[in-house]
Formats: sequence, structure tokens, C-alpha cells
Amino acid sequence: MAILFKNVTAVLMDPAHTVLEGAYVAVEGRTIDSVGVTRPAGSFDREIDGRGGILMPGLVNAHTHVPMTAMRGYGDGHNLQDWLNDFIFPVESRWDDRAVAACTSLGLMEMIASGTTCIADMYMRTGVIAQAAADAGISANLSCGGVFFGEDFSPAVCVDCANETELADRWHGHDHGRIQIDASLHAEYTSKPGLWEWTADFAKSRGLGMHVHISETKREHEECRARWGNTPIQTLAKYGVFDVRAIAAHCVWTEPEDWAVMAEKGISAVHNPVSNLKLGSGVAPIPDLRKAGVNVALGTDGVSSNNATDLFADLKIAAILQNGVRCDPLALNAWDALEMATVNGARALGRNTGVIEAGRDADLILLDAEAPNLTPCHDAANNLAYAAHGGNVILNMCRGKVIYENGEFRTIDAEKVRREVLDYAVPVLFGRN
Amino acid sequence: MAILFKNVTAVLMDPAHTVLEGAYVAVEGRTIDSVGVTRPAGSFDREIDGRGGILMPGLVNAHTHVPMTAMRGYGDGHNLQDWLNDFIFPVESRWDDRAVAACTSLGLMEMIASGTTCIADMYMRTGVIAQAAADAGISANLSCGGVFFGEDFSPAVCVDCANETELADRWHGHDHGRIQIDASLHAEYTSKPGLWEWTADFAKSRGLGMHVHISETKREHEECRARWGNTPIQTLAKYGVFDVRAIAAHCVWTEPEDWAVMAEKGISAVHNPVSNLKLGSGVAPIPDLRKAGVNVALGTDGVSSNNATDLFADLKIAAILQNGVRCDPLALNAWDALEMATVNGARALGRNTGVIEAGRDADLILLDAEAPNLTPCHDAANNLAYAAHGGNVILNMCRGKVIYENGEFRTIDAEKVRREVLDYAVPVLFGRN
Repeated sequence: MAILFKNVTAVLMDPAHTVLEGAYVAVEGRTIDSVGVTRPAGSFDREIDGRGGILMPGLVNAHTHVPMTAMRGYGDGHNLQDWLNDFIFPVESRWDDRAVAACTSLGLMEMIASGTTCIADMYMRTGVIAQAAADAGISANLSCGGVFFGEDFSPAVCVDCANETELADRWHGHDHGRIQIDASLHAEYTSKPGLWEWTADFAKSRGLGMHVHISETKREHEECRARWGNTPIQTLAKYGVFDVRAIAAHCVWTEPEDWAVMAEKGISAVHNPVSNLKLGSGVAPIPDLRKAGVNVALGTDGVSSNNATDLFADLKIAAILQNGVRCDPLALNAWDALEMATVNGARALGRNTGVIEAGRDADLILLDAEAPNLTPCHDAANNLAYAAHGGNVILNMCRGKVIYENGEFRTIDAEKVRREVLDYAVPVLFGRN
Repeated sequence: MAILFKNVTAVLMDPAHTVLEGAYVAVEGRTIDSVGVTRPAGSFDREIDGRGGILMPGLVNAHTHVPMTAMRGYGDGHNLQDWLNDFIFPVESRWDDRAVAACTSLGLMEMIASGTTCIADMYMRTGVIAQAAADAGISANLSCGGVFFGEDFSPAVCVDCANETELADRWHGHDHGRIQIDASLHAEYTSKPGLWEWTADFAKSRGLGMHVHISETKREHEECRARWGNTPIQTLAKYGVFDVRAIAAHCVWTEPEDWAVMAEKGISAVHNPVSNLKLGSGVAPIPDLRKAGVNVALGTDGVSSNNATDLFADLKIAAILQNGVRCDPLALNAWDALEMATVNGARALGRNTGVIEAGRDADLILLDAEAPNLTPCHDAANNLAYAAHGGNVILNMCRGKVIYENGEFRTIDAEKVRREVLDYAVPVLFGRN
């Protein structure tokens, strides 16, 4: 299918920070075919007149746990340990596939409606998540977050080794690579060297990326040091965990030596500012990571600790937070934050997206720039970074397919998902009606 | 006019944190008439079936500069001094009444659409702002932010003394008190003791409140100490400036002695977390202020340093920011943030609003709680504080009058305002078309 966007302000997210007024962006099949200010030749199955609208690459949510949308605001107001032990873990013990499917679809609805086209997820029952993402039309890097608490590791006794293998066999590369599987470790403190080695080898042998939680809390970071004599990044690096494209989520307590390793190995940091603030984990040293040459992407983390997935809200917080805590109004600017949420995320996930350019995946979102909160517009990037919210998104295209438009979902039966969450998943998980 | 809200989840914002399911809230004229879970007697001119919706008090934006909506994102990416001198001040020198009227209306549209029913504003050409607020139907405490840079103060040579007087004469108490005038000083560093004394006396003699910027930046705070041997709060307090109901905006660098004075005199602090972060001013010590007994309200500050006025976004940031910078997940909770944005704001402004209770002003907003980002709902307050955004607001009632519903403004001609901003104000202010 050939689609033409016309009369849009196109924020390309290229290195030159090009903003094209009165732009035409042509999409052919799954791919962007041309970008310019003159009408391209040829005819189109559909022409979308975006007059007054801003077209930009779809947002990349580079670290999340989509099914946890079920726990939005559940058990809030307790300390981290009580929250996990008394609220989150008991609920997680009650998951079944049907509940995961429903809550994943609900979470994807929120993301799609607010402009996300690509995610990196880590959660259990990952095959169910893969099916929901495949059906929703969104691009997803999925991982199961391997854990191993025993003493004597072997792939035969580690359930997550079987899970990883089955997941990669079934889903990696699905629909021309729209669904990808990343190898993964939940974290240093929830696994052992045997699993680290197995996972590193598995990723290398299958050509997969890697997704790990790193130094989210001070306690985690310091206990790793006490246990292994080194930080989580450096400890896992020694086992080859980061010898493939890798996502390190959080990185709040990483240190200069960590940043050097990350830059050298090309490990992407995923900043989750809202979750880190809400849970009292701290403020990640984003300007330092960037200065050290680390690719920094952006994530919402799970809804259980955010409690939303409107990435426009999170990119604004990312943009202003460093200025405030460093008392430096120039610590991060609008483009820095937008890059984190688009092109840097694409790089972190190994995706050919995040930029409006011929040959890239046609992951595009259109915003109503005539909304009061986007008027006037002295600088489109600035309005996107600081003034926009997810409600300004009027169209979401993933890989050339419009999956959301003017409040309507094209791939998800919103009312059915809502009923399935409220009538099935919530009673199963929380024992309530 | 009698209006009945029925079948709503009513978040009352009373001290008991009552959330009524299946509630009825009756409005008679400008006032809430009854609140309960059974249908009140009598007939109504209109019944609003809020099934699936959350009804809460309208939000109070307790510190803003509405006409600065014109400068959304203008001159961003420069340090504070360059930003003010090279961008903001030159634009401000070009204001005329017509441009102020247009940009005020635009700013109010954004606020109304995102759930604000009451504001405290400080800006020049205040009478024009008063007319726009009166027309829009919103409640407003307005002030002109008195400055005096000369050496020999007398009311006769200080333009702002005339402005304050004229403003109070014309507008204070307009429309049954919907428009109120506060006496004001822009700040300690932009005025002199003569004006402080005059303004304090003026407020007392006229029965007005007071609105002042306090300790926004470290430099301002320390230079005041060097100049007067004391902090801004304590310096101005000695001249009687806070002997009336008073709003102290920012308070980022206030100290324990300041908090004691504020608690004793009943001075409300207005937290502006987004502006303080974005400009690199710092993080206000909100838990300490609260612990000291200071009433803490919430503001967006001007759009020029936010760059939006969706108070739901700002209350989320307020709620999570303290947790993060203090590494304490319990530093502030959902109710704390909601109180700042409603009942505490009402108290700061001397308004009979911010709570759903018989006898209060009927300032009410209805949110679509079936939106994906508010599903599921384990705790309505939690969803409001952390998951809601302004786009969830489907109805805004100020003093018993519906001024916004389902995307339509009832008191403002949105397209006319938009054209006036783009075709008149922007060219006048920025020399562009």
C-alpha cells in the first residue's frame, strides 16, 4: 500500500535536526519511500493531508513490562520491599495466559494512542506478549528476563533457558523482523554466573541482542560490588554478556568506569526517569553517560512504577530533570530528549527506525499542532519535547500500516480488551470484581 | 441553573480522602448544593450522567503568567540571563493590550481544557488579563507584580502603585468575587523598601492578599542575604508584606528559619517543579516545608519556562520528584500531590473551592476514567496523581457554569483566539508572520 503524508511539518530526527515545513513523506509498503518539500511522482492509495500537523518518527519505549499495566497504582504508598513482597509478587503468582494477553493489549493501546511504535519489553509468559504485539501491529523486542537462584546451574534445570530457546525459535524475526527476541538476564542479583555464560553464548550463537536491568538501586549496585568486587556492568561484562548489542536498563548508580565499558562495548543505557523518581531509586547521571559516549535511550518501565506509558510525558521529565538537579539550564535540551525517545531508542534496539528518511521503517506519528497546548509554535522540536502530551497524537503508523487514527484503534478491539481486563484479568489477579 | 452529576466516582478532596462510588453531586447556581450516594430530591435543568467518569474539584494553578503563553519555547537552550535579556525582555517591550488579550485567552484555553478552574496570575497589563479571565468564566486572583528600581520611592513616581490602585478599584470582587486582585511585589531584588511598605499598607487597607516571587534561584537568595543580612522571606516580613494572606512563589532556596516564619504567618508556598527544573533553579524542599506546617500549593509558572499548563503533568512531577532526589519512595504520595493542586491551592488563594462539599464553589471537572491510561483503577486518587493527563478532562465547570465539554469551549471562540494570536500577536511580538 502506498500512502502519502502531505502538508506536514516533518521533524526528521536526522543528525542535522532538520524540520521541513510543508513536507511530503511517501510510504511504500513497510518503508519510507521519499521525503521532501515537493510532491513525489506517482499515485497513492491514500493521501493524508496533515495540514497543521507535525509528523515525526514514532517513539521508542526502550524498557517496559507491558503486562504490568494490570497493576496501575496497585500497592502504592509503601516502601519498595513491602510493595514488591506484599503486592506485586503475589499478583504475579496468579498470572495466566489469558490475563497476560488482555493486560498486554491494554498496555499497548495506551502506548499506541500516545505515539509509541516500538518497544523493548521484559516479562514472563513472553510468547503471549509476542502474540499480542504481533496482533497490535507494533514493533517489539521481547525478552523473558532470565533468573536463576539455585547453586548448581545447568541449562537443563533452568526454566528460563528453555523459555529463551522456545521464544527465539518461535518468534525471532516474525513478520519481517517486526517481532524480535532479545536474550536477557533480569539482573545480576537475580542470577548466577552459569546463567550469565549460557545467556551470553545463546545470544551470540543466535544473533540476538541482550536486555538487562543494571544498577537501578544503590543497594543493588553496592551488594554486587560486595559480592563480586565490581559493579554490575563490569561483573557481567567479564562473562561476555555485553558482547552483543545490549540494553542496560536504569543505570542510576553506574560509575565512570562503567560508562567507559558501556561506550567501548556499545551498550545502550535506557533512562527511566519517572520510575526511578517514583520508587526513590535516584536520578541517573545522563549527561555524564552521554559525555562518555554512551547511547542513551528512554523507557517508561512498567506501569506499576510509572504509572502510565505516555512517553511524551517521560521525555519532558527527562529533558528538565537533569537541568534541575544539576542547577544547569543547559544540561539537556529539547533535541537531546527527542533523540533519546526516537533515534537513540532505535539504535538501542537494533532497529531501522527513529528517523524520517527514505529506506527506514515507516514508523510515523502525526500530532495535532493546532491544539492549544502546541500554539504558538516557535520551534517544533521544543513544542514536542516540552509542551506535547500523548493526547496530541492523532495518527500512529507502524511499518506502513495505520494502527490508530483520531481516537480509534485499527488493530485492537478496544472495548473487548477493556472488558477482558476488567471482567477476567482483574478478578483473577486481584480476587475482586 | 440546577445541574446534577450522577453515577460518578467522586474524589472529594476532603481531609478523610473520601472517594464516593456511584455518587450524585448537585449544583445550584454557583455553588455545590449536595453530595451523596442517593439521588437528591428536586428537579434539575440538566443531568450529566458521568458513568465511568471521575468527578473531582477543578485544579488550582497557584502561580502563573498567562500572557507568556506567547513565548512557548521561545529562546530555549540558552542560559537564564541570555534567555531573559536577549529573548524574553525584548518581546515583553512590544506587548499591547490586543496581544495580551489574545495570548491570555489562548493560555486560558489550554488550562481550561486540562482541568484548571482557578488561577493566581502575576503579569503586566493586568486589567486586560482580568477582562479575559472574566469572559472565560474561570476564577482568577490577579496581580501586577510591582517593581521599583529607583532610589527615592514615592507612590507618585511608582507606576505600579497607580496600577495596583486602578486594578483593585476596577476588578476586585468582580462577578461575586470570581475575579480578585492580590497586592504584589515581583520580588525582593526588583523593588525597594518604600514599595514594600506601600504595598503592605495597600493590601491591609483594601483587604487584599499578597503575591511575591521568593528565593527562586540561589543567586537571588544569597544576594538578598548580602544586601539585607537576611533571606527574602524574612526581609520582606519585617516590612509587613506578609501580614495578609500571602502566596510565596517558588521557595526553592528557603531555609528552616524561613519555613518557621511562613508557618507562623500562614504564608503559602507555591511549588513550580517544572519551571524550577527546566530553568536549572533547583528542587524546592517541599517535604520540609510541609513538615514545618507550611501550606504548599502548586503552579505551572509561565508557559515560557514550562512550556505547558497541564497541571496534571505538573502534579505528577511534584509527586515523584521528591521521592527521587531524596531516595525515599514515601517522600510524597498521591494524596499529597492532589491536595497541592486543589484544596491547598484554594487555601493559598483564599478561595472557597478545592473540595467537593455542599456550600463550596461549584468548580468541578469530569475525567473519562475509561481511557486506556486510567484503566484499570485500583485507586482513583492514584490514577489521578500518576496516570491522568489533561486530555482525560471531558468537562470543566467553573462556579456552576460548564465552560468546556468534549473538546468544545463554551465561553471562548477558539478559532478566533487562535487566529488573533497567530495573525496579530505573534507578528507584533516577534516581528514574524
